[in-house]
Parts: sequence; C-alpha cells; structure tokens
Amino acid sequence: MSLIVQKFGGTSVADADRLRNVARIIIGAYRAGNSVVAVLSAQGDTTDDLIEKAREINPGASKREMDMLLSTGEQISISLCAMAIQAMGYPVISLTGWQAGMHTNSDYSAARIKRIRTDRIRRELDKKKIVLVAGFQGINRSEDITTLGRGGSDTSAVALAAALGADLCQIYTDVDGVFTADPRTVTGTHQLEEITFDEMLELASLGAQVLHNRSVEMAKRYNVNLEVLSSFSGKPGTKVKEVVSKMEKSHVSGVAKDKNVARIALIGLADQPGIAFKIFSLLAKRGINVDIILQSIGRDGSKDISFTVAKGDAEAAHQVMEDNKQAIGFQNVEVNTHIAKISIVGAGMVNNAGVACKMFEALFSAGININMISTSEIKVSVLVDEREADRAVQAVHDRFFNEFGSEG
Amino acid sequence: MSLIVQKFGGTSVADADRLRNVARIIIGAYRAGNSVVAVLSAQGDTTDDLIEKAREINPGASKREMDMLLSTGEQISISLCAMAIQAMGYPVISLTGWQAGMHTNSDYSAARIKRIRTDRIRRELDKKKIVLVAGFQGINRSEDITTLGRGGSDTSAVALAAALGADLCQIYTDVDGVFTADPRTVTGTHQLEEITFDEMLELASLGAQVLHNRSVEMAKRYNVNLEVLSSFSGKPGTKVKEVVSKMEKSHVSGVAKDKNVARIALIGLADQPGIAFKIFSLLAKRGINVDIILQSIGRDGSKDISFTVAKGDAEAAHQVMEDNKQAIGFQNVEVNTHIAKISIVGAGMVNNAGVACKMFEALFSAGININMISTSEIKVSVLVDEREADRAVQAVHDRFFNEFGSEG
Repeated sequence: MSLIVQKFGGTSVADADRLRNVARIIIGAYRAGNSVVAVLSAQGDTTDDLIEKAREINPGASKREMDMLLSTGEQISISLCAMAIQAMGYPVISLTGWQAGMHTNSDYSAARIKRIRTDRIRRELDKKKIVLVAGFQGINRSEDITTLGRGGSDTSAVALAAALGADLCQIYTDVDGVFTADPRTVTGTHQLEEITFDEMLELASLGAQVLHNRSVEMAKRYNVNLEVLSSFSGKPGTKVKEVVSKMEKSHVSGVAKDKNVARIALIGLADQPGIAFKIFSLLAKRGINVDIILQSIGRDGSKDISFTVAKGDAEAAHQVMEDNKQAIGFQNVEVNTHIAKISIVGAGMVNNAGVACKMFEALFSAGININMISTSEIKVSVLVDEREADRAVQAVHDRFFNEFGSEG
Repeated sequence: MSLIVQKFGGTSVADADRLRNVARIIIGAYRAGNSVVAVLSAQGDTTDDLIEKAREINPGASKREMDMLLSTGEQISISLCAMAIQAMGYPVISLTGWQAGMHTNSDYSAARIKRIRTDRIRRELDKKKIVLVAGFQGINRSEDITTLGRGGSDTSAVALAAALGADLCQIYTDVDGVFTADPRTVTGTHQLEEITFDEMLELASLGAQVLHNRSVEMAKRYNVNLEVLSSFSGKPGTKVKEVVSKMEKSHVSGVAKDKNVARIALIGLADQPGIAFKIFSLLAKRGINVDIILQSIGRDGSKDISFTVAKGDAEAAHQVMEDNKQAIGFQNVEVNTHIAKISIVGAGMVNNAGVACKMFEALFSAGININMISTSEIKVSVLVDEREADRAVQAVHDRFFNEFGSEG
C-alpha cells in the first residue's frame, strides 16, 4: 500500500461539479488501495474576492489579519470536498492547516513551514480515512494563522509528502503536464513524460506557470517524487524527479519565454575592482532582485555592466543608479523595458556545446537580433526585442523539437 | 475602567459601510476608557449561502464538516472588522473561537460551551488591544471546530462576558431594543427601558426574535448585565437584569404572538391515573416538545387532554397518538394548526390577579374567542384563531399600553 499526497488547485475545485470530479479522483486513488492525503486550494476566484473585500475596507490592512481572512478560502474548499466524498460513500475528514500540524514562522502572508506535526493526519489515515488538508496555510508559535503566499498550496503538498514520507506527490492542475514550450502560443509542442527538478526549477523561474518554484526546490531537497497532471483530462502527466531515465534522448527539455524583464545598462564605468559589489549591494538594499548580469571586458580603463530585473523593479533600479551616479562612477545609464527573455532548458545540455549554438542559429535564421546572452549548466537565455518574443520561441522550438529538425 | 463585551449580528456587519459603523461603535467604547471584546456574527446571508453550497453537494453532509464550513463566516467578519478598526488607527486583534479559548462539547452544529480559557483574550486586553472574537463557534476535545447553532453568537458573547467577569454585555442588533409588542404589526408600542431575565425568556420563547433564549438563560445564571440596542440608531437600548427598578410601575412588560403552534386534543380518555404520563412519555421519546398542557376535569369517568406543539411537529404528534390509540385509550383526536398563541409577560403579574382578567376582557371586547388558556407566574397565554392573531395582539396591547387605557 502506498501513501499518495494529491494537490488540487483553485480551478480544479471551482464549483460543485468540479469538486465532485476531484472527489472521484481522490476516491480512485483510495480504492486502488492507497492512503490518500489531498491538499486543496481555495475555490476559483475566492482568494481574489477576499482580497478585494479587504482592500475596500483597508488597503493597508495588517498581514496578520489578511491571513486570518484568506485562510477561510481553503477551509471552505476542504469541507465542501469532504461533503462530496461523503456523498459518494467514503470515509473522509477535512483538516485546516493548524489541525494538520503545519507549523510555520511568523512571516505573515509569506510564511515558511518550520515543522509538520503529522500525528493527527496519521491517526486519521490509520482509521482508513481520506484526509483533506487546507493548503496555503499554517499556524505560528503564537497560535495565529499564517499563509504561505502565492503558490503556497503546492508547497503545502510537497512539505506534507516529505513529512509523511509519501511515495508520490501528485500536483493536479488545469494543464496536462509540462510541455516543451507554452502550447497556447507555440505550435508543435509536446508534453514531457519526465523532467528533472533542476530543469523544472529553470522552467518555473522562466515563467512556465505549472509549478511554484518553492515547491520544486522543496521536492528536490527532500527527494519527493512529483507528478504534474490535469484534473480534467485523466491523462498521464509529467513526472518530476532527481534523475530521469530518458535524459540521453534529448538535451533540451523545453523552451520558455519571460516578458517580465527589463535591462539596465551602465555605460562607461571605471575599470577598477569593487564596482560590481557597489552596484549590486545598492540594489539588494532596496530589495530589488537581479537576474542576469553581464560585464564587458575592460578596455581603455572603461567597462560596461548590464543586468536584468523584473519589469516592476525597473523604475526603482534606474532611480537607485541615478541617485548613486557619483559613488558608482558611470557615464550614463540605459533602461530597456521592451525586451523578453527566451531560454532553453535541459539537464543534458552541459555536455553538449552545440546546443547553445543551435539556438543562436535558429534565431539568426529567423532574423531575430540577440541583445544579451547568459548561460548556466542547464540553461541558455537570450534577450530579444519584446515584439519578436513569440516568433523567437517558435523558431527555437521548431529547431529543437520539430520532427523535421534534428533533436539537440 | 470597565470591561465591556459587545456583540454584533449579521445585519450589523453585512457590508463594508456597516463594518465601519461597527468599528466606530467599538472604538467609541474603547476611547471612553473601557476594555472592549466584540463578538461578531457572519456577514448578512453568508451562513445561508454556505448552507446552500453544502446542500448542492451533499444534503446529508456530516455536521462535523458543516461546522468546518460555516465557521468561516465569522472568521471573515472578524478579520474585516479588524481591518476597519486598523484603518481608523486603533490597536486590534481578531481571534477565532478556538483562539479565544471557546471549548465546547462535541455536539456538532449545536455544541454547548464547556469552558472558556480566557488567557489569550486577557493577554491581548493587557496590551491595550481591542479584541474581536468569532461568535457561534468553538473547539472540542479532539481539536475539531464546532458551532453553537442558531443564535450562537449571542451565547458566545454572554458566555465570554461571564467568563471575563465583564461589567456589561451589549447585544447590538437591528432593532432599538425590546418593545411592548412587535412594532411591525402592532401600533402604539413603545420600547422598554428595562426588563427582567425571566420576562425576556418568556418573550423570546414567544417569538420576540430579539435575543436567543440560551443567551438569556446563561445571562440569568451568571448574572451578566445585558443591554439590547441598535447598531444603527445610536439610541439607548433595553437593559435586561435580574431585578429592574421600575417593576412597580407596570405589571405587564410586553405582548407577544407565536403562530408556530398547533393544538392536539384527545377526547374521551378514561379518568384514571397514569394516562398523562403515558401520553407525554410517548411524545418525549419521539423528541416532540410540548408547550401548554390542559386537562379537563373528569366527568362521568371520562376526561379530555389538550396540548400544544410546534407546527412542524403536529403531524408526528398526531401519528404517535393514532398509533397508540389502544394503549392510551381515547375516543378521538383533533388537530388544529390554524391557531396562534397570544401572551402577556410581566414579572409583576404574580401579585395582581386582575391582569389576566383584563386580557380576557380586551379579547372579549374585540369579539375574539379564546380557545385555551395557560398561566404561569409571569405569563398569561391564550390560543386564538390564527386569522385573529394580529387583531388580538393589538387589542391586548391597547388595553395595557394605550395612553387612554389604564396600566395593568
């Protein structure tokens, strides 16, 4: 008998019919002889509706009270789903975050799980009950309700799977699994059977909205077998593991696009040590996360440094640079918010120098200019003009995955 | 400095504007130098909406899961109200039933409060915070969420007032206080300044929907000073106490009407001992509550017994009687569901025999036939034809409270 943790997102539990569908999936796993713990998100737009209600009353409400408010969403989901399972004749119990022993720190609205006391869940599993747990929430040392922030239900599920030593953690969502590129904008994509944690992390951070990064990081750390699959189609999903069996077949797992990126370029910096430290500590102090950093080779005692930030941080980053122009010592700063980042991700890439080259070739053939390049062990990213982003993804995807192209 | 417990019902917290209004009332009491604990109900129709959601999924859902679902309603109210108070610049914290230490038995959907652990509330009050508590809910020994049933928020408030030794428990509602009769159907009514617990109990059980009986009983038991007042008008309300100062002035506090009543009459019973026991133990076994019981004086070895039950129980009571016709031994049974109970209530009544008489006279003058009479120390009830109920209340009220009539 296996222990399976399943997670169902907001779209999957949006109304009575969908809750019944989720109940059937859970019961299916239970009838197959498994112990089942299912983590649920709030129904559809519930969380957004509650946030709107709060804004109407107090846009500056304390996070402690926001968490008190928002945690009701998942509580409604689990109790309604328990009722659906009861209606189908199976034993079930719903547990809030605190009842399920989800202990977190006190960082309201972005709490981190510190420890899970699994005794209550185990007791209910021993009674042969299906256990439903409210995702996204926990309790801190003062017995106050906390939430884990956006994507928190994925994290709840993976953390529970780790704490319970589950054999599998299934993340049910509204897509069939992980694809070689976003099937909504790219033609000829196909679903991946398997992907490594690291590839999934790169894809998630690149804007493939399938799994929240925090949950993948946690799954990697505790080696939790993940599966991403659809609660609607009933098809097999994508398995996310430490090592995948088909790694040799293709060096590239997917092509991703991220439009939420801005490039800041500092021109004419003095070619002396310590300048990069100065720049990035200033940004860090303001809480601005920097993604790609490129530094030109010094020439004539002068060099350039470019970096990318999220679009929402571009203005603040620009201001910090201007305010410290003297201290940093540059000639001028350029900000470009009309760019997109296109990346190929693949765990097999590191051993094959030709992969990056093939990507550049595909972009060149499509007449797309490359603005900036960054590479890591399992990723090659390029910045291109925002208006050419979709065409760039399609060209790169065609090159690696099109049946007439050769597989990297 | 006084400690005040305030309770606000669903209508009082129905939307953002009303929550702000409630926040202002709470802050008013706090700024006057009091420690304030406010108990809130769910907003407007929230509870009914949640019940409807549950019914759609499973009309036979377990009460444990229903309580899990319904308890979210009050949690939403308290967090939103806390945000409103924060927006006005005052320190506040919201607490769910379990955080506030409301320990109950495990009778889901109708739980009884066993004990209140007030240490968390006291700790927050010591920090000079306004404390908001989710009404209607608690936690049982297994750490599962329970609800107290309808009217439960009144009970939460009174229980908290008793446990905290509060100086006053204010029940804010959508009416100005307790009236001499229902102002929606009777003309010439006026609001009472004070009323005794016992009178309030009789009025509540007679259908004056101002305060839930459980909360009045508890207030009486622990001698909690109650005040019923409007969250909208800002006017002084009605004080409910053990002994009221103006008792001598009027023997009658109010006139109440209850249409939810049916009369069952057993005709031609043998005039022997033990028959009444037989009848009412049969009804008790079926969980049917009996209100008024009247037994005619035996004559020619035969007597009649009439009793009233709630309208919803009339059919079941009738059936029990028919099923046991032989065992009880009566000739026939008559059921009348087209009746109403009209009552006058007043703690001063017991010492004034003329009061009942005056009521009968008023009804006679109005040409209304009296079907059945029952009296207690502080109440006189009569059954009249349902169609004449409103006219009967008006006639009785005019007789006792009209400025041209004399005060009982």
